Order: sequence, then structure tokens, then C-alpha cells
Amino acid sequence: MLKKEQNDLLTQTGPGTPGGRLFRSYWLPALLASELPENDCPPVRVKLLSERLIAFRDSKGRYGLMDEFCAHRGVSLWFGRNEEDGLRCPYHGWKYDYTGQCIEVPSEPEESGFCNKIKLNSYPLIERGGVLWTYMGPPEKRPPLPEWEFANVPPEQSFTSKRIQESNWLQAMEGGIDSSHVSFLHRGDLNSDPLFKGAKANRYNLNDSRPVFEVVESAGGLFIGARRNADNGHYYWRITQWVMPSFTMIAPRGNHPVHGHFWIPIDDENCWTWSFDYHPTRALTEEERRAMEEGKGIHVKYVPGTFRPLANKDNDYLIDRAAQKAGKTYSGVEGIAMQDASLQESMGPVVDRTKENLVSTDNGIIMARHRLLRATKALIDKDVSPPGVEAVHQQVRSAAVVLPPDKPFVEAAKEALMVRVGTAHASV
Amino acid sequence: MLKKEQNDLLTQTGPGTPGGRLFRSYWLPALLASELPENDCPPVRVKLLSERLIAFRDSKGRYGLMDEFCAHRGVSLWFGRNEEDGLRCPYHGWKYDYTGQCIEVPSEPEESGFCNKIKLNSYPLIERGGVLWTYMGPPEKRPPLPEWEFANVPPEQSFTSKRIQESNWLQAMEGGIDSSHVSFLHRGDLNSDPLFKGAKANRYNLNDSRPVFEVVESAGGLFIGARRNADNGHYYWRITQWVMPSFTMIAPRGNHPVHGHFWIPIDDENCWTWSFDYHPTRALTEEERRAMEEGKGIHVKYVPGTFRPLANKDNDYLIDRAAQKAGKTYSGVEGIAMQDASLQESMGPVVDRTKENLVSTDNGIIMARHRLLRATKALIDKDVSPPGVEAVHQQVRSAAVVLPPDKPFVEAAKEALMVRVGTAHASV
Amino acid sequence: MLKKEQNDLLTQTGPGTPGGRLFRSYWLPALLASELPENDCPPVRVKLLSERLIAFRDSKGRYGLMDEFCAHRGVSLWFGRNEEDGLRCPYHGWKYDYTGQCIEVPSEPEESGFCNKIKLNSYPLIERGGVLWTYMGPPEKRPPLPEWEFANVPPEQSFTSKRIQESNWLQAMEGGIDSSHVSFLHRGDLNSDPLFKGAKANRYNLNDSRPVFEVVESAGGLFIGARRNADNGHYYWRITQWVMPSFTMIAPRGNHPVHGHFWIPIDDENCWTWSFDYHPTRALTEEERRAMEEGKGIHVKYVPGTFRPLANKDNDYLIDRAAQKAGKTYSGVEGIAMQDASLQESMGPVVDRTKENLVSTDNGIIMARHRLLRATKALIDKDVSPPGVEAVHQQVRSAAVVLPPDKPFVEAAKEALMVRVGTAHASV
Repeated sequence: MLKKEQNDLLTQTGPGTPGGRLFRSYWLPALLASELPENDCPPVRVKLLSERLIAFRDSKGRYGLMDEFCAHRGVSLWFGRNEEDGLRCPYHGWKYDYTGQCIEVPSEPEESGFCNKIKLNSYPLIERGGVLWTYMGPPEKRPPLPEWEFANVPPEQSFTSKRIQESNWLQAMEGGIDSSHVSFLHRGDLNSDPLFKGAKANRYNLNDSRPVFEVVESAGGLFIGARRNADNGHYYWRITQWVMPSFTMIAPRGNHPVHGHFWIPIDDENCWTWSFDYHPTRALTEEERRAMEEGKGIHVKYVPGTFRPLANKDNDYLIDRAAQKAGKTYSGVEGIAMQDASLQESMGPVVDRTKENLVSTDNGIIMARHRLLRATKALIDKDVSPPGVEAVHQQVRSAAVVLPPDKPFVEAAKEALMVRVGTAHASV
Repeated sequence: MLKKEQNDLLTQTGPGTPGGRLFRSYWLPALLASELPENDCPPVRVKLLSERLIAFRDSKGRYGLMDEFCAHRGVSLWFGRNEEDGLRCPYHGWKYDYTGQCIEVPSEPEESGFCNKIKLNSYPLIERGGVLWTYMGPPEKRPPLPEWEFANVPPEQSFTSKRIQESNWLQAMEGGIDSSHVSFLHRGDLNSDPLFKGAKANRYNLNDSRPVFEVVESAGGLFIGARRNADNGHYYWRITQWVMPSFTMIAPRGNHPVHGHFWIPIDDENCWTWSFDYHPTRALTEEERRAMEEGKGIHVKYVPGTFRPLANKDNDYLIDRAAQKAGKTYSGVEGIAMQDASLQESMGPVVDRTKENLVSTDNGIIMARHRLLRATKALIDKDVSPPGVEAVHQQVRSAAVVLPPDKPFVEAAKEALMVRVGTAHASV
Repeated sequence: MLKKEQNDLLTQTGPGTPGGRLFRSYWLPALLASELPENDCPPVRVKLLSERLIAFRDSKGRYGLMDEFCAHRGVSLWFGRNEEDGLRCPYHGWKYDYTGQCIEVPSEPEESGFCNKIKLNSYPLIERGGVLWTYMGPPEKRPPLPEWEFANVPPEQSFTSKRIQESNWLQAMEGGIDSSHVSFLHRGDLNSDPLFKGAKANRYNLNDSRPVFEVVESAGGLFIGARRNADNGHYYWRITQWVMPSFTMIAPRGNHPVHGHFWIPIDDENCWTWSFDYHPTRALTEEERRAMEEGKGIHVKYVPGTFRPLANKDNDYLIDRAAQKAGKTYSGVEGIAMQDASLQESMGPVVDRTKENLVSTDNGIIMARHRLLRATKALIDKDVSPPGVEAVHQQVRSAAVVLPPDKPFVEAAKEALMVRVGTAHASV
């Protein structure tokens, strides 16, 4: 349970808010690179942390991310002409380069230098792993480029998608570190989803619906260990990584690709759910890639032409009560991603955390909130850079391991929880 | 005309409001029993008096009505699994019985007794006459079960429907006790609607468009008498019953079933219009029942899969100006129910009663408001139970009678205005 | 750039606001006469200056414009019966004449004179040039009838349309006096639109994208001169008329009809864009009229049955990125009217003028705002009737002329800037 002020602090990320300053300490995924597929392609509207921005790719392939609205009279640059190294406002031809600098105002004599004084607020936008990343904080604090493994493997080894989620980012992220709901909500999918089924360990998940949670602080966030009974007195450990502020990586299953998420605020009532799958040592198979494209695993089907899920709150997530009754799905909603999203959205745009009743299995959530609050306070009060900014905090993996009963999981799985190039993830 | 404070008091019924406390003194219709057609069927979302609730029917057939959101982390129980004597949250399997009591938290050891401490706010939900009734007030004040005649006759003698009305409850209810608009708005329907036409007295309605109203307080509310000229110097009296807070029963016509309404706040800008037809002494004919199902009389056609009328404000109620011009309908809207609803919704979500100009034919409305204000004040100030709570207040009938000119209608029609089992309603 | 208070003052026109009082000094176009095509036709809802009104045409052909809601209990008179010299509320038959005077309350004895005391707020509504005009100010200040030339020529010489624009009126109007955007936004249309192409002077527009603006106060508003290089050292002048508060008339091209606009507030976030084309001395050709009906020139195609453009913000104005890339359209939006509207709407419902960066080509806009502020202040402080009210201020024309370099445009084009009956507009 949180006080109202705490809930506000964690859930509000607009300009000038403490939570907004926290998020502005990190490189954040802003767009799929495929949204800007070629030089001089149409610009794309981007809303992040309650700011309305425009992204474009100039004639030389440089990416720009800047205020959506022309500095002249406020027209949206989404209608802009992207040509000859800049984005030109269609109203009076004012032109901006990829840094937001105005480089031409046709009505003013060039020699006046007028356009030099006009610059749109802008942020760096760089490509890594098929994702365009931005950093929205003060330039002098700009951290090193992101080093998440999924974005560093060769493209044939990974698949990334994004979807709009109609809720605050925090309740979405809390679902991502909540290992305990798998035995309920996703029960029907462990043995049917092509990206989950067949793992030997799935029966541990299904047989032991009262896992014991151990949560340990990591350098960048938390190790969240869920312990279930395995065979011969051993334990089956599923270890989720949470790295501040909103990177989560779920424990893998069998030889399936490993997957994870970012939860990035659009505004305080909507967020982007970024979902990636990758394998550290092999290309994804055609079957795997097709399954991901078809919305299996943690991915979704879309309303055509949008990133909104086809199953959404306006159609009650296409709930199928017969499938629910038959146990084919647990909640009646199809697909792991929408099972999560539907419940998180059902909490309302921003869940009221003054009313919740948390239990021991929520320990990961409790500790994540605590860490977020602490880091925000340190950032605001003492200008301390928060965990998760450094590259080494990002070079992490989730893991699924079977351990003897007397081994502390963090120590026993130490190697498995770090990126080791050329070595597969630890999975059961 | 009302002062703004009076209008607010009468129209606001959320938790903690005086008007909300008044409504929470009564058994209110909450759902059609057919919405929960069998044991362990899917739960149904219910919004009443601005509270978001979930209704379900357990494995033993018991009905539950409780907070929509799981006490754990706020997920909507609409996605819940209804099985084995309880509704289970699909997120982590917390399970509630029909009283809202949490009876299982799978992650917690049973012996901890944790779940005993978790109870959702809940209300009784009982079936009577094909309707599920709830009482949302303090348990110690719970009144006897509702005794409305339509809900007590055998099922083959009655038909009940409900529809969403996009206005505050009070302006809807005021339409229900406003006998004077019949000669205008419904003029075209008296002789064409299969559930209205053919009554000998219809011509009294159409011939005398300046009825004289007499309104007399009853034990539970008001008798609203509308006097029109009949033959041979006699008077044709149509007597509407209003029982607090929002039960209305319109005078019958010929041997048609008699009908009435409840107007139940969903929130302050929407209400449920409940509409019933019944005959005290005979089964409804097949033709009558089919007409009701097809939206004749006081019933409506729906947007498929919803309780929203097919003719609604988004489509201008399918207004037919040619039919209006030809006098087939008076307002261009088809059907008695939607003729009323369209006009009441056109007043805006909550009509501003500081601006109205009432006349003598609004006397029923004036006295009803006065009685509501008085009863609310007595309830708030002195904890006096309001009229309409007692079963005897509910055992009433409307009536249509022809009386000699010297007879006061309440006295002359005394018997006709009470439920008399085995005797038909008094009609002309 | 404006201060927030200035922006509010110019953009807010509801009852009681200074800007609302300014607009209430003028005859404003309220409806197309074709919306009330015959006596006793259905009434039409009209929202103007944030007031909800109903317009109707009575049995004698008189036009009425009055409060939308019945004085009795607030029902919308849009459902009213228009018959026998009045509009009758469909609820209880209260009847109003075209002045808003209640002339019958059926439930009250005629001799009571009750209805004499009931009068809806109403405004005069008169037809001129196929447009119904209203004046919403105090009766004692009512100005002479409007004398715009387009409304005074024979009907075969003019064509008028209206469309809803989803923005405040001011940013729409500012587009209308902004001659400088033509060389950019409409570049692709000058040579293709059937109502623009073929004028000899179009090449001056396209060859000189850095026009020099001279703005001079006129009696009723401004002359806005845009000077471009013509041949042989001469200048091509395009002179736009702005007459307070929101009449604009664009310089003509060749022998095409001349055109202009009114921008009339619906409420503070929406306005009517009125668009007219006319020729002072000849009938429009069939081709011209058909082009206008098909949405060419400054007119648009509609969502059927509405005045909402078919290309609108919900469908991203049907943007065609390939056409934009190919230079067929400059912004990707088709049609001159929607090119303007899309950009003006993209600024948001009310553009924040505290953030703009104006340049010399915005001089017309700057001076228009200044004049509006000055006139509003004089009206509020000293009850001074604002410019544009008098008929002589309205008898103006825009003009396109080629002048030797030493001639001041207002003086040289003096005759061309006035209505001269029987003489065509000055065009190149």
C-alpha cells in the first residue's frame, strides 16, 4: 500500500515532475527503427513522458526527435516535408535539421541570420538493435549508449514489437515482475503457446502454485527469484531481472528464446509496452519469428495500421467465456500479452495504490517501488544518478535453474545472471 | 423551479450524498435475472448509485453483488472465474464467496487465516419476479423484501425489460408521473401501438387535451389523478401511482396489461429505466409478449448485445421528419419509450431546474420533489425511514376509472388503488 | 507573440466575454438558407458564440432563431413540430412564434394570459444572398443589414458553402489573411485546381517566394498587400481585404470568380468556416459551379449528411505521402481548403500564442490582432461601435494588380478595392 503522494510520485512522469526527471535519466526506446524505414521518409508523431514530439530520418540517414510543433505559429510538423537534410514545415517552409535547429526561413533574408535563433527542443535519437532510443534529460548528464543484450545480438537472433497499453506505466511494469500470476492467469498457455510450451520445467510451474519468493537487490535493480519444487528435493528457480526504471526480463523456458519488456510512459494514463524475444547464440527459427509476428508469446495482433491491440478494452478484449469455462484460457482472454494487459487496464488508468492489500508474493513489487522512490529522492535532493544508467547494469540476463535446496540463488546463479557473449542463457 | 442546492440534492446519489442515502434505504432492481441465467455463469458488471460492482451467481445458485475490483491489486473481477462456490480473480487466484468474503488466497498458507481478513464491500442480491434486487444501505436498516405486484404474479403474467437512459434519473422519473404529455407526445401511438390501442377510453385522452390534475399524498408517495371529460357528464380518471423514490405505475387501458417503471441511478448522468407489463389475473398472450419483445408499448429495441436503445442520441433517435409531418408520430421519434427518452435526454445530462417554468399540470412533479426533499431531510437529520420502504406502500395499483362528477377520486377508487389478489386492475 | 490574457480575450466569445461582446456587434452568417428550404420545414440546431439555438422557418416564411430549449422543462425544440405559424414543443405542446414569444400553452386557459409571460431569448434571422444572418447583440444597437457584395449579386453569380473547423476561429481567420503561405502550402494547386489554374499571375506567385508585405489600415479593417516581382520591373500586388471581425477576401486570379471567407465561432474550440465564390459581372459557369460542389477551390467534400469535411482529423485528413513526395501536394493533404484547415487544426483547439515566433510576413496577423484588441477595449470601456459594422466598411473587394514600382498600392488600387456595381473585380 502506498500513500497518495507516493503513488503520484511514481506514476507521474511529465515535464517537471520528480518521476519525469527519473525517466529523463535513461536512454528510452522511442520507436521501432522500422517506423522510419528510409531516408526522407514521412515523419512520425511520438508522445513520450507527456511530451508531443516528432521523429524523422533525414536525407543522410540521421535521426531527429524534436518538438512536434513549428516554432513559427505552432503547426504540427507531422505534415512536414522531409527533404534535403531537413524537415520543412508545410505552412511557410521553415526548415529544421535533425537537431531541431532551424536552418531556413524562406521569408527572411538569409543574411539576417534569423533562423539561427530558432531551435526546437530536441533529443538525440540513435538506432540500436532495431530500436530507436532517445535520452530526454540534460545533455551534460547524457549516459553511455544502452547495452541491453537483446539489442546487441545480430538481427536474426531477435524480434522486438511494441503495443499501446491504456494504463499508467507502473501497473504494467508491476505485472512484468510479478512471477506469481503465471500459475494462474497464464496457466492455459504454458502448454499451448508455441513460444512457451514443451519446456520440461512447465510442470513445476503448474504443479506448485505457491512459489516462495526471494528478492535481492542488484546493482541496477532487483533479482526476483521464484522458487518452486522440482524433482528429487531440488528447487526450480525462475529469476526475473528488473533494471531501473522499467526494464524487465522474464526467466526463459527450455530452448525457447528469452524475452522481456520495457514499459515507457506515453503520458500518465498510457504507456508503450515494448516486448522483445532473442536468443543469445542462435538465429530465431522461421516458426518462432512467424509466431511472434502472429501475436503469440508476449506479442499481440494489432488493429491494422496501428500499434493498438486488436483485442482491447473497447471490445472487452474479445473475451471468450466458453474458452474460460473450459480452462483453455484462465480469464477468457486469448494470448499471454493481452491476458496481462486486459487485467492491468481493468485496474483503471492509474490504479489507486492506497487501497491495495499486498502479500508476500508481491515482495518484488514492494521492493521495486521502494527502490524507485529512493532513487528519485536521491536524484532530486542530491543529484545522484540513479541505478540502471550504467552499461554494466544493463548487461544482465534472466535465468531458470534447478538448484539444490541449500544454495542461495543469487550466488549459485551468479554467472547465469550476467551477459556472457557466445553462451546461451541458463534455462530449464 | 428549484434552487441549485435542491436540484443537486435530488439528482446526486453517489456514496455519501444525501440523495444517495435516500436511495440506499430501498430494495432496488439491479439486474434482470436472465443476465445471470445459470449457476457459475459469467459475472456481470453493474454500476449503481455511482458504485462499480460485480454480480455473479455461484455454484449453489446464490447471488452475489460486490465491489468490482479485487482487494489485492485492483483487477476487475469481471474477468473472474466463477467456479466452486466463488468468484476467483484471474490474476492470482484470490477467491470470493457471494458475500464478498475472501475464501482463498493461494499464495498464503491456509493456516495463516489471511483471507479471513479480506472482504469486499457487498450487498444482498435476491431474485423476485425475474428481477435481481439489491439493498445498498446499512445492514441493520435492511427493509423487508420488495412486494411490488408485478414481481409477485406468476411469470407468465408479466414481462420486464430495462434500458440505459442517458440522463439523470430524476428527469426520467418526472416523465413517468407526467400524465399530461400523453395527449401530445404519444398522441399518434394511442391508436396504433398494439399495447395501447383499442381501449374505449383512448378517445377521452385525445378529445380532452386540457386535463385537470389532482394530486394527493399516499402513504408511500402520491396518487396523481388526471381528470378528463368522459360521456354523460362523467369524468374519466387516470390515476398514476408514484411510490418513493422512483416507482411509477401508469393507468391501464382497456384489457391491456398494466405497466410501470423504476428509474434507478447508474451515476448522476445515466440511469436504468426499468419497464414492466403485467396482468394481475391472466397470462400475457403470445401477441402481447411478442410485441413487448419487439419494443412496442413502453419497451424498446436494442443495439444488439447491449441494453442501449437502437434509437439513441448518437443517431438522433432515427428521427423521421416525414412521419412527424404526417402526424404518424408527434415528435418524429418512433415508439412510446423512445419518445419519452429522447426528450428527457435532450434536456442535457442533468436538467437545470433553476430555469424551468412549471404550470398546474406539473403539480405531480412539484409534489414528488417536495416529498423527496422532505424525506431526505428527515432521513439525514433524524434518521427517519422514508416512505416507500414498507411492503404495504408497495402493494399498490394504478387505475383508470369513470366516475360521477361529485366523487373525489381517491376515495371513489380506493379499492382499485390497492393490490387485490385474484382481481383484475380497474381499467376503461 | 501575445500575453495569455490577450490570447484569451481574442479567442473567447461566449456570453459575457469581451470577445463575445465584439462578435455580438455584427450581423453574422448563421445558416445556409438551403438548411431551411421551405415553410414549416424541420428546425435546425445552431450553435453560435457558445450559445445553443434553434432555427426555424414558419408557415409564412419568417425565420426564427431562439434558445434551443423549451422554457417549460428544458426539452430541445429540435424535436418540435413546426406548424401553423410556430414551433411547438413536442412534450406538452407549448408553442413559440418566430420571435421566441410563447403563443400557446395548451394546459393553461387561454384567458389566463400565461403564455404572454413566456418568451425565449431570440435573435433576428434574415436572408440575404442565400445566407441566413443573425445579430446577437442588444436590439438598440442593431446595425443596418449586411452589405457584402457576394450576398448582393444575383444568385447565379455566387456560390456559398460552410464547413465545420475543429479549431478556434482566430487561428482559422489568421490563415485567411496570411498571403505568404500560398507559395508553400498551396504551391501544387495553383496550376491544377480548376478554380485557380491558368491565371497569368500564378507564375509570379511561384517564382517569388519571398513576397514583401505592406499592411495598411482600412476603415473597416486592413488592406494586406503582398508584393511580388512581375515582368519589366513592375510589381504584382495581391491585396487581401480583412474587415472586422472575421471577413476575409482573397485576391482574385485571372477571370476566375473571386472568393473569401467568414470565420464564425461555434464555441471556443470550433468555428464555422464560410466560403464564398462570386463574380461581380457574370454568372458562374456550369463547370465552375460543379467544381465548387465537388470541393474544389476553397470548398470541401463532406461526410455525407453533415458539414464536417470528409478529410478530417480522425482520418489524418486522408494524407497521401506519395503525392506529397511527388510534389503533387505540398503537405500531402488534398485541396486548398483542407490544406489550410488541417494545419490550423493541428495547432490544437486554441493555439498558444505565447510561444510563437512571428516574422515580417506575419504583419497582417499582428495588425489584425492589434485592431481587434483595440476595438474590443473601446467597445468595453467606452461603448464605441467597432469597425466593420457600417455598410460602407463591407462594400469592399480584394484585388490583384500589376503596378509600376513607385506607386503605393492602396492609392493606386483605390478604385479596385471598392465595390463598383457593373464592373468586374481587378485581377491578373
